[in-house]
Amino acid sequence: MRQAGRSLPEYRALRGEGSILEAIKTPEIAAEVTLQPVRRYGVDAAILFSDIVVPVAAIGFGIDVIPGRGPVAEHPFTSRSDLTRLRPLEVDQDIPYVIETVRHVAAELNAQDTTLIGFAGAPFTVASYLVEGGPSRTFTKVKALMYQDPELWDDLVAVLADLSITFLRAQINAGAQALQLFDSWAGALSPNEYARFALPATKHVLESVSDLKVPRILFGVGTGELLGQMATSGADVVGVDWRVPLDEATRRIGNHPLQGNLDPALCFAPVDALEDATRDILRRGGKAPGHIFNLGHGVLPETDPDMLKRVVDLVHNEGRTLAKEAQ
Amino acid sequence: MRQAGRSLPEYRALRGEGSILEAIKTPEIAAEVTLQPVRRYGVDAAILFSDIVVPVAAIGFGIDVIPGRGPVAEHPFTSRSDLTRLRPLEVDQDIPYVIETVRHVAAELNAQDTTLIGFAGAPFTVASYLVEGGPSRTFTKVKALMYQDPELWDDLVAVLADLSITFLRAQINAGAQALQLFDSWAGALSPNEYARFALPATKHVLESVSDLKVPRILFGVGTGELLGQMATSGADVVGVDWRVPLDEATRRIGNHPLQGNLDPALCFAPVDALEDATRDILRRGGKAPGHIFNLGHGVLPETDPDMLKRVVDLVHNEGRTLAKEAQ
Repeated sequence: MRQAGRSLPEYRALRGEGSILEAIKTPEIAAEVTLQPVRRYGVDAAILFSDIVVPVAAIGFGIDVIPGRGPVAEHPFTSRSDLTRLRPLEVDQDIPYVIETVRHVAAELNAQDTTLIGFAGAPFTVASYLVEGGPSRTFTKVKALMYQDPELWDDLVAVLADLSITFLRAQINAGAQALQLFDSWAGALSPNEYARFALPATKHVLESVSDLKVPRILFGVGTGELLGQMATSGADVVGVDWRVPLDEATRRIGNHPLQGNLDPALCFAPVDALEDATRDILRRGGKAPGHIFNLGHGVLPETDPDMLKRVVDLVHNEGRTLAKEAQ
Repeated sequence: MRQAGRSLPEYRALRGEGSILEAIKTPEIAAEVTLQPVRRYGVDAAILFSDIVVPVAAIGFGIDVIPGRGPVAEHPFTSRSDLTRLRPLEVDQDIPYVIETVRHVAAELNAQDTTLIGFAGAPFTVASYLVEGGPSRTFTKVKALMYQDPELWDDLVAVLADLSITFLRAQINAGAQALQLFDSWAGALSPNEYARFALPATKHVLESVSDLKVPRILFGVGTGELLGQMATSGADVVGVDWRVPLDEATRRIGNHPLQGNLDPALCFAPVDALEDATRDILRRGGKAPGHIFNLGHGVLPETDPDMLKRVVDLVHNEGRTLAKEAQ
C-alpha cells in the first residue's frame, strides 16, 4: 500500500514534521519507515519509502516536497536551456543513501519471504511537477509545453526516463525484487495525449529494465480510459483506482494482471461496508487473469490503522479461497 | 462555456478582485458578466453567472468563495444539528438579485435568439463543500459521512435538492430557457457510491423540474464510469469531459445526447492542434444521437480569448456540414 506509513503513529513519531526528502536521505529512517507497515499489517510486499522527485532533487534541479502541498520546484522548467539542469544520475555519488536503504530493507524482508518493490516516477508525472512548479489540478503549463514545443517535451521526458531507469536499476541491483512506476497524474490526459506525450517514455523505462526479470507494475489514478494503452507499456501489472470495477477493467485491458481497486476513503466507512467492498473486489479479482489486492490510491493520512489491518487479514483469509472458487 | 468570463479582460475590468458572491448579488454586474462571452464569442447560449453555493450562502449557511481557492465554509457540516442551518430558499427574500439578473439577461438574449441556461449545483457536489469545508482532492470527510451515517447523508442531500429545485424553478420562471445541473466532483465516486449516494438526489432535482419543459443538462468531470447512470437521471443531455472520446461515450450511454468534450487546456496549444481537436470532436459528435459542442470543463483563467473565438467560429462554420455528412 502506497503511503501506508503516514497513518501510523510509529511513523509520525519517527519522522516528525521534517522534510520527506531529508528522511529519504537518512537510511535508518527510510528503512524503518519502509518496514513499519509490514510489521503492522503483515502485507506481502513493501514499497520503498521514496518520492518521485528523488532523482531530480538528487541531481540538483532545485525541488523540495512541502508537507501538505507536495513537490515544489524553485525555478520551474520553462525552456530548452533548463535541460542543462538535468544531468544523468550517478548512483554512488548522488543517491548512496537509497542503495543503503534498499540493501538493509531487502535483507530484512527476504528473511521473512516478503517482497521489496522498487519505486520511481513515470516521466509524464515527474515532468508535470517540474513544468508546473508544483501540484496542479489543470496541468495547463505542462499541456501547453507538450503542444507548443513537442520536441522539447520529448527531450525532457527522455531525460526523465533515463533518470528513472538508472534509479530503478540501482534499486533492483541492491535487492528490490519488483518495481512500480508511478504515473499518478496520467489520468489528466486524454487518450490521444497519453498516446503521444506519455506512453512512449513510460514504455522506454519499462522496456529498459526488462532484462532484470522482475515484475513491473504501472500505477495511475483516474486512468479508466487509458487502461488498454497502459497494458501495452511493458508493465506486467497495471494499476486500477476505485472508479473502474475490476471486471470492466479486465474487459478494457484484455488478458492482463491488475493491481488495486479499493477506495482509500472506504477506510472511513463502518467495518461492514469496508469488508463488503473488499470481498466484492476479491470476487471480481478472482475472475481476472491475475489481481494483486491493493488500495486504488495512497493511504489517506487520517486512516485508522486498525481498519487497514482488517482489510489485510480479510484478504489473507478469504482471498485465496475466493480466487480458487472463481476459477 | 462555463466560466467563459474569467479569461476576458472586460470581465476582469468589471469584477476586479472582489468576492464572486458579491458580484452575483449585483444584477448590473452579474448580467453584464453573463453577456460578455456572448458578445465576444457569438456562442449560441449563455450560462448564468452564478456559483453552486449561491443558495446555501443566501440562506445563511456561512460560506464564501475565496478567489483562487473556491467555496469555503466557516463551520462545516458535521452532524445532524447542522441541518437546522439549512432552511428552505425564499426566492423573493433571499435571491431577488438572481431574478433581476435573469430577467435582464433573458430579455437581451431572447432578442438575439440566444438561449440563457439556468444554473444550479447537484446535491452531492454542493454537499461536498459543506462537509469538507472547502475544496478537496480526496473527499474523505464526505465519504466518511455517507458511509457512517447514510440517513443523515440522505437528509442533507434531500435539503440541498430542494434548494436547487427552488433555485432552478425561479430562474426558469424569470426567463431562463434551459438548465444545467453541476455535479462537478461526481467523478470522485465509484459507480456503487454514485448509485447509492449521489444519483437519487440528482434524479429528484431533474424530475422535479420536468414540468417546466426546458432542456436539462447534467454536468460532471471525470465521470467516464458514471455516464450510463447519468443518462438515467432525467437529464436530456449529459456532459462529457475530454477523457472519454464521444463515440466511446455514446457506446456507454446509449441513445442520449451529449455535451462537451474539448479539453480546456488545448486552448494553450498551437491553433492547428486546437482546430484539429475541435474537428475531431465535431466528427465524432456528428455520429452521436445529439451533441452540443462545449469545453469538457470550465474555461481556464489564462486562456487567450482569441483561441476560444477560433473554436466557436470553426464549430459554427463546419459543425453543421460535418454533422450532415455523418448522417
